[in-house]
Amino acid sequence: MNADGAEQVFFEIGVVVPKRNHEHENEIYDCVEVLVDEFMKMGLKVERIHGLTEEFIKLGAPVEVLGRAAANLQIVKPTSIGMDLQFEWENVDAFLRQPDGSLFSWCERFQCYYHLIYGTINRSKSDINLTFDGKEIQWEAGKSLLHKLESEGIVKQVFPLHDEKKRKNLLRSWALKLKDCTNQPIDDIYSYFGVKIAVYFTFLGMYTRWITFPAAFGLIVDWVNFGSLQLLVLPIFLVSIVLWAVMFFQFWKRKNAALLARLQINSSVSTSQESRVLGMEWSALHSSIGLTKNLGTDKAKLKEAFQRYEWFGYLMRFRNDTIVILSIICLQLPFELCYAHLYAVIKSHIVRFGLTAIYISLIQYFTKIGGKISARLIKYEISESQEYRADSLVYKVFGLYFMQTYIGVFYHALVHRDFLTLRLLLIQRMIISQVKLFLKVRKVFENLAENSLPFLKYSYKKFKAVRNEEQCGKGGSTGKVKFSSRVEKEYLKSTYSASICKELEDGLFDDFLELALQFGMIMMFACAFPSAFVFSAMGNLVEMRADALKLLVMFKRPVPRAATTIGAWLNIFQFLIMMSICTNSALLVWLYDQEGKWKIEPGLAAILIMEHVLLLIKFGFSHLVPEEPAWVRANRMKNVTQAQYMCSRQLFRSISGGEKAFAEWNAERSLHESKKTD
Amino acid sequence: MNADGAEQVFFEIGVVVPKRNHEHENEIYDCVEVLVDEFMKMGLKVERIHGLTEEFIKLGAPVEVLGRAAANLQIVKPTSIGMDLQFEWENVDAFLRQPDGSLFSWCERFQCYYHLIYGTINRSKSDINLTFDGKEIQWEAGKSLLHKLESEGIVKQVFPLHDEKKRKNLLRSWALKLKDCTNQPIDDIYSYFGVKIAVYFTFLGMYTRWITFPAAFGLIVDWVNFGSLQLLVLPIFLVSIVLWAVMFFQFWKRKNAALLARLQINSSVSTSQESRVLGMEWSALHSSIGLTKNLGTDKAKLKEAFQRYEWFGYLMRFRNDTIVILSIICLQLPFELCYAHLYAVIKSHIVRFGLTAIYISLIQYFTKIGGKISARLIKYEISESQEYRADSLVYKVFGLYFMQTYIGVFYHALVHRDFLTLRLLLIQRMIISQVKLFLKVRKVFENLAENSLPFLKYSYKKFKAVRNEEQCGKGGSTGKVKFSSRVEKEYLKSTYSASICKELEDGLFDDFLELALQFGMIMMFACAFPSAFVFSAMGNLVEMRADALKLLVMFKRPVPRAATTIGAWLNIFQFLIMMSICTNSALLVWLYDQEGKWKIEPGLAAILIMEHVLLLIKFGFSHLVPEEPAWVRANRMKNVTQAQYMCSRQLFRSISGGEKAFAEWNAERSLHESKKTD
Repeated sequence: MNADGAEQVFFEIGVVVPKRNHEHENEIYDCVEVLVDEFMKMGLKVERIHGLTEEFIKLGAPVEVLGRAAANLQIVKPTSIGMDLQFEWENVDAFLRQPDGSLFSWCERFQCYYHLIYGTINRSKSDINLTFDGKEIQWEAGKSLLHKLESEGIVKQVFPLHDEKKRKNLLRSWALKLKDCTNQPIDDIYSYFGVKIAVYFTFLGMYTRWITFPAAFGLIVDWVNFGSLQLLVLPIFLVSIVLWAVMFFQFWKRKNAALLARLQINSSVSTSQESRVLGMEWSALHSSIGLTKNLGTDKAKLKEAFQRYEWFGYLMRFRNDTIVILSIICLQLPFELCYAHLYAVIKSHIVRFGLTAIYISLIQYFTKIGGKISARLIKYEISESQEYRADSLVYKVFGLYFMQTYIGVFYHALVHRDFLTLRLLLIQRMIISQVKLFLKVRKVFENLAENSLPFLKYSYKKFKAVRNEEQCGKGGSTGKVKFSSRVEKEYLKSTYSASICKELEDGLFDDFLELALQFGMIMMFACAFPSAFVFSAMGNLVEMRADALKLLVMFKRPVPRAATTIGAWLNIFQFLIMMSICTNSALLVWLYDQEGKWKIEPGLAAILIMEHVLLLIKFGFSHLVPEEPAWVRANRMKNVTQAQYMCSRQLFRSISGGEKAFAEWNAERSLHESKKTD
Repeated sequence: MNADGAEQVFFEIGVVVPKRNHEHENEIYDCVEVLVDEFMKMGLKVERIHGLTEEFIKLGAPVEVLGRAAANLQIVKPTSIGMDLQFEWENVDAFLRQPDGSLFSWCERFQCYYHLIYGTINRSKSDINLTFDGKEIQWEAGKSLLHKLESEGIVKQVFPLHDEKKRKNLLRSWALKLKDCTNQPIDDIYSYFGVKIAVYFTFLGMYTRWITFPAAFGLIVDWVNFGSLQLLVLPIFLVSIVLWAVMFFQFWKRKNAALLARLQINSSVSTSQESRVLGMEWSALHSSIGLTKNLGTDKAKLKEAFQRYEWFGYLMRFRNDTIVILSIICLQLPFELCYAHLYAVIKSHIVRFGLTAIYISLIQYFTKIGGKISARLIKYEISESQEYRADSLVYKVFGLYFMQTYIGVFYHALVHRDFLTLRLLLIQRMIISQVKLFLKVRKVFENLAENSLPFLKYSYKKFKAVRNEEQCGKGGSTGKVKFSSRVEKEYLKSTYSASICKELEDGLFDDFLELALQFGMIMMFACAFPSAFVFSAMGNLVEMRADALKLLVMFKRPVPRAATTIGAWLNIFQFLIMMSICTNSALLVWLYDQEGKWKIEPGLAAILIMEHVLLLIKFGFSHLVPEEPAWVRANRMKNVTQAQYMCSRQLFRSISGGEKAFAEWNAERSLHESKKTD
């Protein structure tokens, strides 16, 4: 793309409205026509496509229009001097372009589109009466038309459109490329799907590469006879996989920081990390300032208000966490234990099968309810950023899944303390129910099913649509009906969203959940079944391609998310490492106790010491290797120093010019905020 | 103090030169006279005092002189708009003043003085010949005169001077105030001693307040009989003290952040934290950029150079740590075990006493050597900031002291697994050798001794000085000899420096070491002797006042240090908490195993589970409560946003003006750097 303004405009947003009778009289007051007019007035490029049952309004924006919206939104972008500044269209050349040459990233573009299309405000002083198929609709002064139409059910959906050319390119260069799997075109993924999905695939690629080491080691441990050293093999294996896992996640943090630096998402590194530590975003604090504005500039009062706000937030989070943890322990744990116990006691295979069927149907119901309760609880927490709430949900829901996945194995490990049967049981359970079914069959078949199910759904919807068409027999408006118009196809695809809570999490939740549960399974029972890593490694290879295909073929283009790290999942993985140190030590104790070759006393002591040393390493290692590579940090610091020098003159002038500039700035800001809150 | 320039100038730096024969001829080439001339030319206020054997040059600087030096040094200071900017004398009103009303903090002033007095450079093109008591000294062109005179041994010392008025105020309001001990005038301490010492006393005050809880609980546990619940009391005590310790250190981090925000050391919060995580300061990276300057602006090469540099740094640190750990384990551990074993085996009290005497003399020798080796090892690490090196030394030396203090107790705990005798032994050891001797006798007496020893030293030096005077019989130069001149008194006081390595650590090292060893002793054997907390609490009260007195009365005014946190000690305290969870669990296992009331199996399992839960809490808690209070963060973020807005215009102008401004800036910077390296 060239920089001199002659960029091609792509249609990136689709708005769905029902088809209407065009026989009505005054078209100028038809609400859809008014909406389209408003869009055109804004400078958006509009294309209207009449599908079978709906009408689609495809929207594209020239870069100037996006730029104005970005300036309104006060989007902060990196500039060529390294400092991040609020975007201004007049100084467009100062801002760095994306790796693919465009000015705005997909996430920023989406934000701007959203700002634009929901900014269709009635600027006259009186309400405007619009019609829709004869029905009257009142567009109140100062309200957004799109919001109004959405609440009336006239605008059925607003969704981002796929870009066919880029999608096909990605299919060829990424999803359908079979050799050199772990080498993914991350820059292209970033520019097409946004940063969160790019981070996920970077993580998946790195994980798949790294897991080859424990997979190879696990195979050796399982299949080679070490003779008299056999007793030492498992502890060594445990130590090495724990070290592997600890190093993997520390280096992942570094890779994440390096990735963000490469994609020029400079400032968000520190802010997202900070917000992760703090548990609340600046936006939340800012709104709290808004609340305490009536306190004036009294610093002590403001500080007190902040403290109250902060501690109230902790209190709410603590309450929610307590509710979730208690309900998991008091409701889910007995249920799971009951199933595990019944399964162990009952000998008849048919009854067992029936029991499992009942269990599976019940547990799905359970999980759904759990997810809904968690999502509702989070709404009572202080309204913080979307990413923070998503993380909070992830923790709570992972608790549910953790119990559901592992409690059966724990139960058997505790009851059958005879290690050999336990080992057999574990291998059996893991290979059959988990690894094969979970990793290979479920991955491949479910991804195939996922790939075909939406297609079947689509076909069914198409069939229904055609039948409706035939029943109505009206033929639609002339010429404009393209039966298999691309936008209609996309509209009929399902949305990339989490199974548990559609509003807060996207489809990555399910993928990450699978990854984490699989990681927990292979790590926590590593000593009982070292070969599990091989299955996991192979499963990951399949997963990478399946996820890519899923995103490109099966779903609507996902709404871009701004998360720059893997967020809550990192902490969950760290927790699983800690758990695996403990469970594996317990397994070792039982193993050597059982075989009677070591005396329990020194053996137990040795294993306990090993466990504690491993825990120490796990928590100490993050102090040794920093989370951010030196060159990333150097880059950031250099930029800050440079920028500081550049602006010092201007700043001094404004300071010496009294607080006037400030007052202006504050006035402007508060005006803007009051607009926002309206 | 008033803002309009008429500030009083205090003498803050003393330079010591020997007294000379004033009968020599050409005084204009006398090096001391030249030095004084140079000082006066700079605008420094000079007062010369002739003591008994030395001459003292007292230096004070008007605020303009300091300001120019600060601008030269590119000191970054907070401004009234919240952003930190490089100091410029022209815009002095823009910069925030210290809480006590002065423009520069003591640390900044000291930096400026240093920059000024060592900036006495020979600006002529040829060398200048100076004389000192007839001896010729060549002042090379472009070299600093003070450096030259120091290397020639003519300038004996450069040291900061006490400010009598402020010192007396502090004595009254702080060191000699007996009631409400924990409420210290931190702002005054900060403005007199600098941030590191203020942080130490804040920590000590908070620690003393917080320790009352475990002290009270410990007393109850030890002296109340709980009847049938007696078995549960110790585990509950353990859980509560671990929770207490974890919370204390998390809240300490918050308090530290709040303190820095109050003292307007805004930016250093984040940078110091970052540098702690990263293990290396920006300055180091910058110098590395200097090294790689010949690589040009090739980004990939620069990145590679950074990576090499970073990994080489880790390698060196890893090597040093390995050397230290191995030598502690292979050399110190056998020695300590040998002593502990001999002490346990030998029954005769006299032989025991002799053994202990030999041990103590040997161990002191050991520790000294260890400290020297550590200090030398650190010099081989990549030259990073002083604070980083000090932290690195602290870790290494603490390893030595850790072994020395606890290995005997561990040995007895392992050998005498009979809990009651062990408990008796521990109580005995702790009360007698540790708590009484260490905390009370050593604290009080040593502090008294510390308070009287320097005084005795001073008296002896005075006595010697007087004798010299009499022997010389010259009477000094007329009128100017004040025998007990304050500056001479101060010169004879000892320096506030660490016993282990004078260059890297100040006197706080010894205080922190004592605090940490005491904390480890009471925490790690808490279950064996809960009352120890009481002794510690009382010891702390004494310590607070003793340290204050020590600083104000016994030592020269310490050189201010820029460290804004307690640095390495925080990690050491965290490590001790982790150790205490493990050791106390082990103690509990032995206790309940011994008394035979619990069966070992469920009891052991219960204790192990408790231990793991505690470890989980210890490492999870820091995720729950952020290290920085919301109001501090809000303040910082608000400032950044404001500043960004303020300077965006100027920045855009400079960007559109091409890279010219940059080139200028870079040229200026590199010029400055090349000057520095000279």
